Amino acid sequence: MTRVLVGNDFSEDVRTDRGWTGWWVQRLAWFAADGDILVLPAAIDEDFLAYATALTGVDRNTLTVVVPPSDEGGEGTLSPGRLARPEFVAALRAALGGRAVTEVFSLWPDAAVARLARTLGAPAALPGYGFVDQGGGPLTNSKSVFRTLAGGAGVPVPAGAVATSKDVAETTIVELLASGEPVMVKHDFLSGGHGNEILSTTGGIRPIGARRTVTVPDRAAVRAYLDERWEWLTGGGRSRPVVERYHRDSSAYFTEYLISDEGVELAGDGELLSAPYAVGQVMPCVGLEPEVMRALVDGGRELCESLHAMGYRGRCATDAIVTPRREVLFTEYNGRITGSTHIYAVLGEQVIGDGYGTDRLILERVWPEGWAVGSFADALERLTASGHAYDPATRTGVLFTNAFDGRNGVMYCIAAPDLDTAWSLDRQLGSLFARKSAR
Amino acid sequence: MTRVLVGNDFSEDVRTDRGWTGWWVQRLAWFAADGDILVLPAAIDEDFLAYATALTGVDRNTLTVVVPPSDEGGEGTLSPGRLARPEFVAALRAALGGRAVTEVFSLWPDAAVARLARTLGAPAALPGYGFVDQGGGPLTNSKSVFRTLAGGAGVPVPAGAVATSKDVAETTIVELLASGEPVMVKHDFLSGGHGNEILSTTGGIRPIGARRTVTVPDRAAVRAYLDERWEWLTGGGRSRPVVERYHRDSSAYFTEYLISDEGVELAGDGELLSAPYAVGQVMPCVGLEPEVMRALVDGGRELCESLHAMGYRGRCATDAIVTPRREVLFTEYNGRITGSTHIYAVLGEQVIGDGYGTDRLILERVWPEGWAVGSFADALERLTASGHAYDPATRTGVLFTNAFDGRNGVMYCIAAPDLDTAWSLDRQLGSLFARKSAR
Repeated sequence: MTRVLVGNDFSEDVRTDRGWTGWWVQRLAWFAADGDILVLPAAIDEDFLAYATALTGVDRNTLTVVVPPSDEGGEGTLSPGRLARPEFVAALRAALGGRAVTEVFSLWPDAAVARLARTLGAPAALPGYGFVDQGGGPLTNSKSVFRTLAGGAGVPVPAGAVATSKDVAETTIVELLASGEPVMVKHDFLSGGHGNEILSTTGGIRPIGARRTVTVPDRAAVRAYLDERWEWLTGGGRSRPVVERYHRDSSAYFTEYLISDEGVELAGDGELLSAPYAVGQVMPCVGLEPEVMRALVDGGRELCESLHAMGYRGRCATDAIVTPRREVLFTEYNGRITGSTHIYAVLGEQVIGDGYGTDRLILERVWPEGWAVGSFADALERLTASGHAYDPATRTGVLFTNAFDGRNGVMYCIAAPDLDTAWSLDRQLGSLFARKSAR
Repeated sequence: MTRVLVGNDFSEDVRTDRGWTGWWVQRLAWFAADGDILVLPAAIDEDFLAYATALTGVDRNTLTVVVPPSDEGGEGTLSPGRLARPEFVAALRAALGGRAVTEVFSLWPDAAVARLARTLGAPAALPGYGFVDQGGGPLTNSKSVFRTLAGGAGVPVPAGAVATSKDVAETTIVELLASGEPVMVKHDFLSGGHGNEILSTTGGIRPIGARRTVTVPDRAAVRAYLDERWEWLTGGGRSRPVVERYHRDSSAYFTEYLISDEGVELAGDGELLSAPYAVGQVMPCVGLEPEVMRALVDGGRELCESLHAMGYRGRCATDAIVTPRREVLFTEYNGRITGSTHIYAVLGEQVIGDGYGTDRLILERVWPEGWAVGSFADALERLTASGHAYDPATRTGVLFTNAFDGRNGVMYCIAAPDLDTAWSLDRQLGSLFARKSAR
């Protein structure tokens, strides 16, 4: 019984901003079990791997890490080309040593992974093989296809449209602005708010979950905006942006599901924090009214039922905003291993264990601007010395969630009995990691 | 009870070769019932409308034809802009005269039609409104999405891949050619074989259902081909071509379904004739082995079940080839009113009536090269004088299926007890319409 885990990233065919993600995909380590083979775009941060496996109880020595020869300039990602290299396939076969592949697991449902499963003679080891093999990945990660399926299932979304052309975008934006509310324009595939821009007829809108706010007093200004940004919004014409009403002062939540041959199962949930880009998450959801929680869970499940019928297998997170009037409006889905999966499914359910979601929650944090450490080992040493490191006895404290990001930091999360305690501990980390104290 | 029928065409957002189709969409007339409002890009051919309504038993005087003001250069199609024109909406309201809209029917599931239904206060009158409104149309007419859903449902397709990039296309083509068989490369959205090209390592392949055959002896030639044609194959980068093994000497068939809230129902079937482009159809399928027919019907139904789950409502034809070894391999679907729908559903089931598919079949023909008439009236006069016109008493003879094509001809079909009789009558039409005899 051997599993092959592939630390791939968002398909380069729909997104070209991902060269930096060599460290980000190392969260793959959380999913490892004894005997697994990990395929990664670059050598793993061994300090992080030792840390993660100690927490999950996996024997590092039973794991094999295989790094395919890299294309020029493509060291950061596992491109289809790298995954098809004969030298790599030979190295993988050597690592397998004749053991059968029982599961192929990847962070992103790329056709290149299906090809790899086929090359290894184990297509059935990849759940949803046929769907992934024939280009399903972009469909489960597209904001435009999301809106089509939501429309088809009757799942509520903000008013708006899929902008099949610049004219459609212009008409929709002008109509939505006429209702007196701002509008969000979204790139089909970018994430974390980086593909979103807010348009408003007046100034003074604070961008949350978006790059910026653009003031467009009239149709001519909308047209000028589109003329300037259409190329970017469509990824050079390759994808369809979404235009939708922007609901100010909303909160954002996700519910994530496991889609298997048996059906759709709720796997995890939480709140998404943005200021203006993604800065962290709270898992599970805290303090939501039962009817709001039910709307989140039911709407997300309906979307995943559609993906199930289409043949997708794996995780899918559905995101929704809750407006000040407590409307639940879905905004996107992400059919992949998300930035939440390892937090709730491994750090929550396995490392914290049974109390996760009842007497313990997790506050996850993107490394803040202005904090700096030199390496994973440096971060761990400082954290351990401070006494704030996670303690299995109390099931509280700080856990690192990924490898060193190669510049300044290490993403982390805090296990705590409640959110106030978590934020209080988070503030204390400032004195530990803020750049001035690091000098 | 008033229906609005929209004679729109393939969305211009994914396809820009359609300015000529003003006559083609006039087949809308076959679907009219008493009291209907027909929306068309240009004035209808009244001779054709009189002919069609006489056969369907509809009172022409109860029908209203509304033509929206045209954009510059856009007289041939009902663009989203034309369907949103306030003058047009006012004319439509006037035609309605206060009657409620009970059904909105369109040839193509365009978001612009959903917008129109909403503008008329009747979104529920458009089946699958939410799906269509949020851009579903391109998904139900995409060869790449077709392959993804086929992969997801386990419906057999020719070996191949969705070419998410030029590199993926090159790898797939080279691998398929290495097996010694030719390869077909297909534009995501073009139809009738016009978006297909065949690649072969050797010459001498006759192109069927394709523009041409290109000889590519090695990888360098494949790359040169892709470098030259990628822009065209991807519609300027906007869509994903399909690469698949080309099975020589195959026949092609369709099964068409009606997808409603209740489920998926087989609606019609037939053979597709190409030489090299679409030249006609035989309906229903004739002479297929029961197990081949069952594979066609079951595979098509599975694909439509996926579209049903996604929220699409309306007709969908699934196309498949039957290879010389009697394998059934699906090649595309078309979620729209196809070029077959009016033939089997109206001319077959309504005009011929009960005997259609048992003691009568239909041979449908694209107007042949070299034949010429001056108008619909001219064609009808010649046909009537010849004695070959359809006779309700014998339920045999020639039926025109559309308006004058504006250049040379009128598409037609032949009702006959068997295929030999139909082809025999077809040959006799040559003396009636061939250009030399017309002079």
